[in-house]
Amino acid sequence: MTIILYDLSSALPQKAFTPNTWKTRLCLNYKGLPYKTEWIEFPDIKTDVYDKLGVTPASKADGSPAWVLPVIHDTATGVSVAESFAIAEYLEKTYPSTPSLFPHGTIVFQELFNGAVPASALEPLGRFFVPEVYRVVNPASKEFIRRTREAAFGKALEDIAPTGDEAVAAWAKAEAGWGTIAAWYAKSGGPFLLGPTVSWADFYVVCWLITARSALGEEDQRWKNIASWHGGRFVQLLDDLKEYQAVL
Amino acid sequence: MTIILYDLSSALPQKAFTPNTWKTRLCLNYKGLPYKTEWIEFPDIKTDVYDKLGVTPASKADGSPAWVLPVIHDTATGVSVAESFAIAEYLEKTYPSTPSLFPHGTIVFQELFNGAVPASALEPLGRFFVPEVYRVVNPASKEFIRRTREAAFGKALEDIAPTGDEAVAAWAKAEAGWGTIAAWYAKSGGPFLLGPTVSWADFYVVCWLITARSALGEEDQRWKNIASWHGGRFVQLLDDLKEYQAVL
Repeated sequence: MTIILYDLSSALPQKAFTPNTWKTRLCLNYKGLPYKTEWIEFPDIKTDVYDKLGVTPASKADGSPAWVLPVIHDTATGVSVAESFAIAEYLEKTYPSTPSLFPHGTIVFQELFNGAVPASALEPLGRFFVPEVYRVVNPASKEFIRRTREAAFGKALEDIAPTGDEAVAAWAKAEAGWGTIAAWYAKSGGPFLLGPTVSWADFYVVCWLITARSALGEEDQRWKNIASWHGGRFVQLLDDLKEYQAVL
Repeated sequence: MTIILYDLSSALPQKAFTPNTWKTRLCLNYKGLPYKTEWIEFPDIKTDVYDKLGVTPASKADGSPAWVLPVIHDTATGVSVAESFAIAEYLEKTYPSTPSLFPHGTIVFQELFNGAVPASALEPLGRFFVPEVYRVVNPASKEFIRRTREAAFGKALEDIAPTGDEAVAAWAKAEAGWGTIAAWYAKSGGPFLLGPTVSWADFYVVCWLITARSALGEEDQRWKNIASWHGGRFVQLLDDLKEYQAVL
């Protein structure tokens, strides 16, 4: 009996790289639950996960179905769940004796935290990472990534990431946005957002750093730049949560 | 040695009625700190509180100074502090052995909660309560309330509260907004937002209910309406936090 985590594949050594599936992997590792990853290519999410499991997708802002991962299937209960916070709630209810993602009764605050990370932290990185995502995915996903990203941004894939002065401004905006997050860790006293105790919110933050580091590689100058922000606060966070980063 | 809480006066039996100063009173009562209220009329906030204590006001969205209460002055330390969350932080740091407003290391989550209460819950009530505020304040504050509210809403005081179909729609919107808050209490398991433990966030919610009940009076049909929302959830919350509602 095990949990199957449906995650997006890539050509990277450990395959895993997308932030939202990393949230769920961090939760599963933190809880010490037995799981294995089933690797999916982007164009196959609907047929190989949603249709196969009979899971109803959430809706995007425009009302169309969001065929996105993570999805889990729990072979012990037969239950399938989509969306990282819903999965966290399922795991909390189903396995109450494992370490809690919402310790000290904080479930409401943890859910509200999902909307708290400033867009100024994530949006610029999102644009910078589009070409990196295209670069690291497998051949089976490349056409899908190009088509969907070009539609979303309204320009050729090669023109999505900012360049020149625009890149400098976007990068500064991202650094300032992450400054808000760094200030939270300073205020909590660290190392985590609840002080001494790990919780969902830390996984919500660190998943973006895992994605950035794995997509860029540790030797990339842009990663070195992120690593230098706010006194190295985020490299420290990656290190403080290292034990939950295994890919099983 | 005591703390002075500067609060807005009214003609109501216990005077206290504005939500933000109630947040601080709830905090002081919860911590069991010795304090006494100094009653201020609206037009006197600048001279009798800010100027007298030498406190720098926060800025409104338009950059003008926000001469607002609560402000406290702690005679034990000589420190004066404005703004309810800043006061809560001051009390936590200065009196660490009193019951915590941010238990279990939740300070970051509590501060983020300040932006979480939906505008749809508060805005309609804000408009309904303008004539009630005018009614309950002392003669010394009436001209001030009329002038500032008419400027803010761009219409005569008597025309600010919705009527007819608009009132029905605004009231329904407020009820739906409070439904979001009721769902949080259901999810936490209650009676408080951290489950069994009182925290700042509960005071953030209940202050609006205290204001509504005191301004309208318990026999008012509109209060009875609020009291009936979501299975009487909010009357229960008022009752669960009753012991912190003394006016000293």
